Amino acid sequence: MQIVSLTKDISLKRPLEMGNAEQLNTVKKVLADVKKRGDQAVADYSEKWDGVKLSEFRVSNNEIQEALANFDSELKTDMEEAANNIRKFHEMQKRSSYDVDVKDGSFIGQRVSPLDAVGLYVPGGSAAYPSSVLMNVIPAQVAGVERIVIVSPPNEKGALPDAVLVAASILGIEEIYKVGGAQAIAALAYGTESIAPVDKITGPGNVFVALAKREVFGEVAIDMIAGPSEIAIIADETAYADEVAADLLSQAEHDPMACPILLTTSDLFAQKVAVEVEKQLLKLPREKIARAAVEKFGKIYVAETMTDIIEAVNKLAPEHLEIMTINPHEVAQKVRHAGAIFIGRYSSEPIGDYFAGTNHVLPTNSTARFSSPLSVDDFIKKTSIIYYTEETWQQHAAKVARLARMEGLEAHARAVESRGWTKGMNQS
Amino acid sequence: MQIVSLTKDISLKRPLEMGNAEQLNTVKKVLADVKKRGDQAVADYSEKWDGVKLSEFRVSNNEIQEALANFDSELKTDMEEAANNIRKFHEMQKRSSYDVDVKDGSFIGQRVSPLDAVGLYVPGGSAAYPSSVLMNVIPAQVAGVERIVIVSPPNEKGALPDAVLVAASILGIEEIYKVGGAQAIAALAYGTESIAPVDKITGPGNVFVALAKREVFGEVAIDMIAGPSEIAIIADETAYADEVAADLLSQAEHDPMACPILLTTSDLFAQKVAVEVEKQLLKLPREKIARAAVEKFGKIYVAETMTDIIEAVNKLAPEHLEIMTINPHEVAQKVRHAGAIFIGRYSSEPIGDYFAGTNHVLPTNSTARFSSPLSVDDFIKKTSIIYYTEETWQQHAAKVARLARMEGLEAHARAVESRGWTKGMNQS
Repeated sequence: MQIVSLTKDISLKRPLEMGNAEQLNTVKKVLADVKKRGDQAVADYSEKWDGVKLSEFRVSNNEIQEALANFDSELKTDMEEAANNIRKFHEMQKRSSYDVDVKDGSFIGQRVSPLDAVGLYVPGGSAAYPSSVLMNVIPAQVAGVERIVIVSPPNEKGALPDAVLVAASILGIEEIYKVGGAQAIAALAYGTESIAPVDKITGPGNVFVALAKREVFGEVAIDMIAGPSEIAIIADETAYADEVAADLLSQAEHDPMACPILLTTSDLFAQKVAVEVEKQLLKLPREKIARAAVEKFGKIYVAETMTDIIEAVNKLAPEHLEIMTINPHEVAQKVRHAGAIFIGRYSSEPIGDYFAGTNHVLPTNSTARFSSPLSVDDFIKKTSIIYYTEETWQQHAAKVARLARMEGLEAHARAVESRGWTKGMNQS
Repeated sequence: MQIVSLTKDISLKRPLEMGNAEQLNTVKKVLADVKKRGDQAVADYSEKWDGVKLSEFRVSNNEIQEALANFDSELKTDMEEAANNIRKFHEMQKRSSYDVDVKDGSFIGQRVSPLDAVGLYVPGGSAAYPSSVLMNVIPAQVAGVERIVIVSPPNEKGALPDAVLVAASILGIEEIYKVGGAQAIAALAYGTESIAPVDKITGPGNVFVALAKREVFGEVAIDMIAGPSEIAIIADETAYADEVAADLLSQAEHDPMACPILLTTSDLFAQKVAVEVEKQLLKLPREKIARAAVEKFGKIYVAETMTDIIEAVNKLAPEHLEIMTINPHEVAQKVRHAGAIFIGRYSSEPIGDYFAGTNHVLPTNSTARFSSPLSVDDFIKKTSIIYYTEETWQQHAAKVARLARMEGLEAHARAVESRGWTKGMNQS
């Protein structure tokens, strides 16, 4: 891992993989086709890309029961404990509607209500991601969303991984479709004969899924399109090089485009971590991916002072930030921009990915300057309410009309005045 | 105004004006040029498009004082009262950070903090929009944003309208630049020698501004790209046809693409409103714009039952909804999707545009199904905090490692286990 001096032009930015024109054309074609032909188009694309001919997209209760029967009970207990932690953390994000009384019975208010229906895309392929199920479904449930749908590409046997079905079952989710790719996004956005449309689609996917989400945005809401993972670690000489190296590699193994960086005030510590990274890399099952990330985007920055490091981190606004210094809580107070901050030696990043209760869907690519972790807020919407009585209208109508005329909007002024017309006021 | 029977295929959707390829190319060129040449490029484009050669972009204190001196004092008082109402309503949206205690001193938390800097685009041209200043700046101030910048295109004399400067002054905003168009968006996104960059850009603008906002999205945050205005009115025979017509026209005068619709159970009332709309249209200063909207997108829907109307409105999710029926509060309870609901005869829509206190930046084009009015939430962001002690780590490390291995992420498992390596645990 390369060791360099910290300079002002530090950046996390990597090119976003947003697909090429050919991929976009394919996605547009799939979307239009599913919109037109519904289930038949979904079946055709599933056969073409997932290699399975499905007569029924929906996962049956039998399949769920089988998955539960097959599943390791210790792992199931772990998932249940994680789900409880996640639920407890997200419960604190619930919002209430409110009214502001104006006078004479008049009021204005904000009504908070859950979205009607949301769809979660769970990626398939070689691995299963039950943690995605927990992290996306629980905030929607806490928000009060009535209909929560999961879509995920089936394996060559036409099945979903047990772990995904068990996670869904723990949360009481029963509407699960064995459909993936752009055709799944199309089905969720437009609806088909067997899959009713939703209002928002969340969850990660491959480039076709990301492109399809972008295309249907506006028709439905989508979550952020997440970039490759990042971790920044602030460490001084009180930290342990092998632990810091292990945490850097935990993010590096995600993606060849992942960005693992260390910022330290100690030259000696920097060298120790570089040695440890190489040592641990050699023993990793996903060595190739992790090595690509480390070599291309990984860096150890050595700075003169902790103040310089904090300034750099606030510029980077990393997705994950670990602080392993003698005074980690103090440093955390000074960091203004990060998706999630892991304080101290024992708060290793994977604890947040799987278990602690915070959400693992976090803003990447320096967007933590203005974006937030996935939360209950992403599954509610607000409606303004205005109720004026005759008395309140009477008191303020002339002011509203004046303000409207100042902006050249005469019809606005007349609308508010019109309530006096039958009383002979201000007839235009 | 056309009268039709309410049917299931009712829709508000109109084509979004997103510009043509030539306009997009122009915008891309401006963005790249401002990024490269900074102030000089901004000055060049201002001269080209606004017809003014500016030596200084920033509005001087003198200019603000002059605007205040020139301004109608009654209007200023109206604006101050509106600002107070808006502030009072938005204060209720403030969020607090929270922690959830885990055990042994461990905790996880959500920190809520304001964005560092935001920029508001105020459109110029023939009219002045001080209400945009109030509606965008106040939520940012309530959120606690430290730096709030206004940009707006100057008139041919190189000045901004008094009303905009007075509105800014009422709110204590002093950083105002006489810059408009795509060059203003570029300056806010990338920064120039004289304009420091911001983290989020809000506010409406013409097609070049909208395109520029889309292009810089990701680099900075943007608010929604609002479509043309909409109003849906639910009225029964207890409503007044002239008042309903006046309110329909208040939105029609905004834009030839605006969509004013009435839904009623009374055939006779429908006919009365149609007559009134025509009568009032003839006397409107902006008749041409309003007539285009009424003829192209305006409709009066006659339904069998109020239940059918409510179902239709929930499908439309209109930006503005007025309810003028015998039981407006009851009907409002049954509406799930709308940007803002105006209840009863005296809650004419312009009251919400200018004065009541709710925000007038609202979701259009049926997006109220999943989007919300502009609020304090748009100017804050959240950061997750995780702090585990050694005891808590010890208790849960094995679970986290198991969950990570279930997803095939060995380096994640090793990271969390690494804290035990010096104690001889689990060395891989």
